[in-house]
Amino acid sequence: MNEDGDFLIKRFFSGDRRAIARLITLVENEDANAERLLDSVFHRTGIAYRIGVTGPPGAGKSTLVDQMAKQFRKSGKTVGIVAVDPSSPFTGGALLGDRVRMSDLSIDPGVFIRSMATRGSRGGLARRTQEVADLLDAFGMDVVIFETVGVGQSELDVVEAADTTVVVLVPESGDSIQAMKAGLMEIGDVFVINKSDREGAERTFTEVGYVLELKNNREAWTPPVLQTVASLGQGIDELIDSLNQHREYQKQTDQRQRKQKQRIEKYVRQIIQEKLVAKFWQSTQEQKLSTLVEQILTKMDSPYRLSEKVILEFCENMNNAD
Amino acid sequence: MNEDGDFLIKRFFSGDRRAIARLITLVENEDANAERLLDSVFHRTGIAYRIGVTGPPGAGKSTLVDQMAKQFRKSGKTVGIVAVDPSSPFTGGALLGDRVRMSDLSIDPGVFIRSMATRGSRGGLARRTQEVADLLDAFGMDVVIFETVGVGQSELDVVEAADTTVVVLVPESGDSIQAMKAGLMEIGDVFVINKSDREGAERTFTEVGYVLELKNNREAWTPPVLQTVASLGQGIDELIDSLNQHREYQKQTDQRQRKQKQRIEKYVRQIIQEKLVAKFWQSTQEQKLSTLVEQILTKMDSPYRLSEKVILEFCENMNNAD
Repeated sequence: MNEDGDFLIKRFFSGDRRAIARLITLVENEDANAERLLDSVFHRTGIAYRIGVTGPPGAGKSTLVDQMAKQFRKSGKTVGIVAVDPSSPFTGGALLGDRVRMSDLSIDPGVFIRSMATRGSRGGLARRTQEVADLLDAFGMDVVIFETVGVGQSELDVVEAADTTVVVLVPESGDSIQAMKAGLMEIGDVFVINKSDREGAERTFTEVGYVLELKNNREAWTPPVLQTVASLGQGIDELIDSLNQHREYQKQTDQRQRKQKQRIEKYVRQIIQEKLVAKFWQSTQEQKLSTLVEQILTKMDSPYRLSEKVILEFCENMNNAD
Repeated sequence: MNEDGDFLIKRFFSGDRRAIARLITLVENEDANAERLLDSVFHRTGIAYRIGVTGPPGAGKSTLVDQMAKQFRKSGKTVGIVAVDPSSPFTGGALLGDRVRMSDLSIDPGVFIRSMATRGSRGGLARRTQEVADLLDAFGMDVVIFETVGVGQSELDVVEAADTTVVVLVPESGDSIQAMKAGLMEIGDVFVINKSDREGAERTFTEVGYVLELKNNREAWTPPVLQTVASLGQGIDELIDSLNQHREYQKQTDQRQRKQKQRIEKYVRQIIQEKLVAKFWQSTQEQKLSTLVEQILTKMDSPYRLSEKVILEFCENMNNAD
């Protein structure tokens, strides 16, 4: 590590907010030093309670996360928020609305909020999000909340890395069906029907409960279904209670360890795969790609046969390099 | 290729619907023979017009795709539909509703519909979806329509592989904002406000047009914004007209070739990467993963440093194998 890196880590461990902000930026930008910096704070991770919040767009997740953070703050806990945020092609960054909404939280020194862009970050998003959470964890945040915008696979990957996953739905016709479609019913540890002052809340509440029953869960934990009106702060106490209960349940069983193990396994797997692939493209192959494409476009060769050949070549090159 | 495979390909080329159904199943299941079978039909691909349809859940995409298919059939074109469909954990397959809706189309021999599950298929979905489209293409379908359920990254990957991408929105408060968030405004070649008989249709129409204008597109193609009521068959003629115009535009410019090239490049890239990673885990490493995880969990080593070591080992093993 260079001197700058050492100094940055020192400032990070002394609780300097600008140091963590800088580290997160380095991770987001996949800076050349990011890996070593992450490695050097890694021994301090694994302490924070990680909560993932997901649900369809428009379910009011942002407001709910704000309320959760405020509630945690009341009990003296520090909170990191990782908002997996879409970047707009027009502003070049996160949508203004999301930035603004957090303003009253973001002046609290016990809260650290970071938005991460989803577009243009295919694949590595879950890994990078976890790394940002690791930074917040190592920085000493008691709670780290992941908030996702949609319910796509990459978002599900993000929340599944959490200790507790909160699925947020709204009382709108078909919302519980859509949730089933998106596979949300399988990943929730706690279900929230937000905007429960709207018409149809009771019906959605019943539906979700019914679907969860159908699931015939063999686990000892039965996901509770809660009703909230996040914009009015209603039902937040009950939500925090449920989160605490789930955490307690995880501690008493081996769930927390199991989750942590899964998270690490997935993480290492991803790092290895990304490094391996990078190694491959670093060799002469990248320039060759357009030649390969040409051969396929002109039907001179077919995709799988050609790929086999290229990989064999790579292996031979690696042998020769020795 | 074994004899069975040869016979299957023969039947496929003779237009046997059971043969394509079987081939698709082999591709979906990642059967050991799938690669060679795909390779052997590859020379017949690249002819079908590929249309991707995406948009938020509940936008009525399924109904719209049905109407599009019917319209294409009226002009004598054969149509393949790849519905990237969520599998429900309760039925073990695609949701019944989606299956039923297609019944009047699925008895038409000029239409071939296939649902593909999204859950549990992380990563490879875009590749497999394209392979199913390749099969439909090689089978002789004039048009292949991809229909996705959500707007996650994997769904965007699917539709971006199409020649023309149709983004479907509904006149609901915030829908155009959500579309921006999900990055949909960037990928649409044609925009459809479906359920345009609902309140707010004009506003959504204006908003979408405004956002597209803001984009300050330097391309010669300006995405049209159309209004439809798919359930009543309204606006479908105009949609097909727009699709034909976009196709014509692509033919006149180098767009179609460029898209095809991008698609092949991405495809080859993916195959190579998947094969490479599989090669790595086939070696002794897979059993070692739990040891690695243990070392990280106990903070004996950190993720990146350890991954580097393991990859070096892999390279050395490959050299020794020679």
